[in-house]
Amino acid sequence: MKAWPDRRILDLFGIELPIILAPMAGPGTAELAIAVSESGGLGSLPCAQLSAAEIRSSVETIRGKTSRPINVNFFCHTPPAFDRERDLAWRARLKPYYLELGLNPEAPFAPPSRRPFDGDGCALVEEFKPEVVSFHFGLPAQNLLDRVKATKARVIGTATTVQEARWLESHGCDAIVAMGFEAGGHRGNFLSDDIARQVGTFALVPQMVDAIRIPVIAAGGVADARGIVAALALGASAVQIGTAYLFCPEAKVPTIHLEALKKAADDDTMITNVFTGRPARGIVNRLMREVGPMAASAPSFPLASSAIAPLRAKSEPRGSNDFVNLWAGQAARLARRGVPAGKLTHALATEALAKL
Amino acid sequence: MKAWPDRRILDLFGIELPIILAPMAGPGTAELAIAVSESGGLGSLPCAQLSAAEIRSSVETIRGKTSRPINVNFFCHTPPAFDRERDLAWRARLKPYYLELGLNPEAPFAPPSRRPFDGDGCALVEEFKPEVVSFHFGLPAQNLLDRVKATKARVIGTATTVQEARWLESHGCDAIVAMGFEAGGHRGNFLSDDIARQVGTFALVPQMVDAIRIPVIAAGGVADARGIVAALALGASAVQIGTAYLFCPEAKVPTIHLEALKKAADDDTMITNVFTGRPARGIVNRLMREVGPMAASAPSFPLASSAIAPLRAKSEPRGSNDFVNLWAGQAARLARRGVPAGKLTHALATEALAKL
Repeated sequence: MKAWPDRRILDLFGIELPIILAPMAGPGTAELAIAVSESGGLGSLPCAQLSAAEIRSSVETIRGKTSRPINVNFFCHTPPAFDRERDLAWRARLKPYYLELGLNPEAPFAPPSRRPFDGDGCALVEEFKPEVVSFHFGLPAQNLLDRVKATKARVIGTATTVQEARWLESHGCDAIVAMGFEAGGHRGNFLSDDIARQVGTFALVPQMVDAIRIPVIAAGGVADARGIVAALALGASAVQIGTAYLFCPEAKVPTIHLEALKKAADDDTMITNVFTGRPARGIVNRLMREVGPMAASAPSFPLASSAIAPLRAKSEPRGSNDFVNLWAGQAARLARRGVPAGKLTHALATEALAKL
Repeated sequence: MKAWPDRRILDLFGIELPIILAPMAGPGTAELAIAVSESGGLGSLPCAQLSAAEIRSSVETIRGKTSRPINVNFFCHTPPAFDRERDLAWRARLKPYYLELGLNPEAPFAPPSRRPFDGDGCALVEEFKPEVVSFHFGLPAQNLLDRVKATKARVIGTATTVQEARWLESHGCDAIVAMGFEAGGHRGNFLSDDIARQVGTFALVPQMVDAIRIPVIAAGGVADARGIVAALALGASAVQIGTAYLFCPEAKVPTIHLEALKKAADDDTMITNVFTGRPARGIVNRLMREVGPMAASAPSFPLASSAIAPLRAKSEPRGSNDFVNLWAGQAARLARRGVPAGKLTHALATEALAKL
């Protein structure tokens, strides 16, 4: 097997292949992380939607099945104050859907399921000492970050612009995910919320590589070996792949989401805030078309999600994806179908090396 | 010198280097086209803003200075009917700027300067027989396209989605420019006008390569040798480069535009329709911020431009870029400064080959 031309990320994380499993809150299971880490890439456990007990149980499962390095991922948003006026506007906007589905539009909502990194999460990092900890939406407070770094974990930050990358580098990150416009799921933007300025992977990666000293991990549109080779050519030291792993049997993807992924063309996704209040890329569906894609009335992240949950709970069992967040990047069509994650990681690496 | 791995575009056009000068109406001079063609790439003459006499004069200049293949580029929009209501709404929206600059908001406008390919343009193609003819915004009417093809010119179409690429291939194009989200200037979209669905170069190129049989030319974010190597890795047979050539002395770029280009960061551009009525990527300025980036009231392309012209004419000499269309892609920062176009083309090719 030929050697990778850039060993920066490999040496930094102690892995064999420059392929990082994107942490995908929801679909990203312990089994998916285990498979990628065992194959020589870096498996990631997304913790944003897990309780402390669930994080503990997942990390224990992973540590029991692989001794290879893993990445544990957290969101770092500041939970917003409840805004009654905005909440009422959002309820009013969604009321027709509640009535259509026979739901009570006045019913109280469950609290949102996404929580930021906090002392509990930090204690788990200190206990389990994952080799890598990655953050989305900036970084946690300095005292929490200091505790993470004291565990000797390598820290990945996520940047959607060169300015964000510089900020993350200056705040102590060891590597940066360059999250291009093409990427699925929540955008990692934290210094700017102007979606119209978001940068494509092709333009973002080389400019970020030129601007910072720490290694760059390309994300957004990377779904096959061509993408890995292209990302390395642009100066990335590794890639982070999400959507392509959604087709693996280890991923926990709702049937209705997987069906949409299988049909998604290059231009079938948009960036929308209607599901959670923060911009995220997903396959276009009714809610995005009719209320979004960017709705000014959506409450701040993650509050917007509470009003969507009952709509989804009622309609999804009927076979409707109208209210399901069908997160996907722009290159779903490049993905293989039904290949186990370890085998996929190995195939992507082997094919990329053959092209290098 | 090593050989290029993919000779499809080289053989199709009879050129030596897989680098095509993007046709940039305004900055794209005969001198710029000559320099790129003479260096072994494909020089392009943008005709959308030229009269028949100007096209004739430019092509004669080019043919007098190089015997190498050239590309002549035309827009193919359908000129819209004048919409009085929309015109009035647009005037009303812009009235504060007219008053601020001491202009009469009731003054009649000059007609827009951008015209589509027509019988006159076609007669010039038949007379000068450029080796390559490229189109933006779809293709001309079948009878005109037949006449172009009868000259033996190779025809390039521009696609922003896989669907558009398939359409262009089925209508007789010989090659397709895959115009990614990152690209500067007018987007080539013609089957869809939903900007929220536009696809990044990194995701677009491989999906287009997989979907059509004719060769794909990657455009959008390609500004240095890394980009050329990455585009070829994604499956492109060549690249089309625009923004990087704006820094060449042969380009006719207004001083105020060049100053903005020199400072443009990765996230300093947006896609806007406020200058012409069609979405185009440019460096963010006051008009885009305050009226756009996408204004529902903007008249159809190219009518919106007529009301902007007086604002620009009055403010630009005062050193203001408030009303100047500062077209640029997302990778201006990767461009070299002040290098002649022939030398730049040669350097890009040499460096890319060294990396391959």
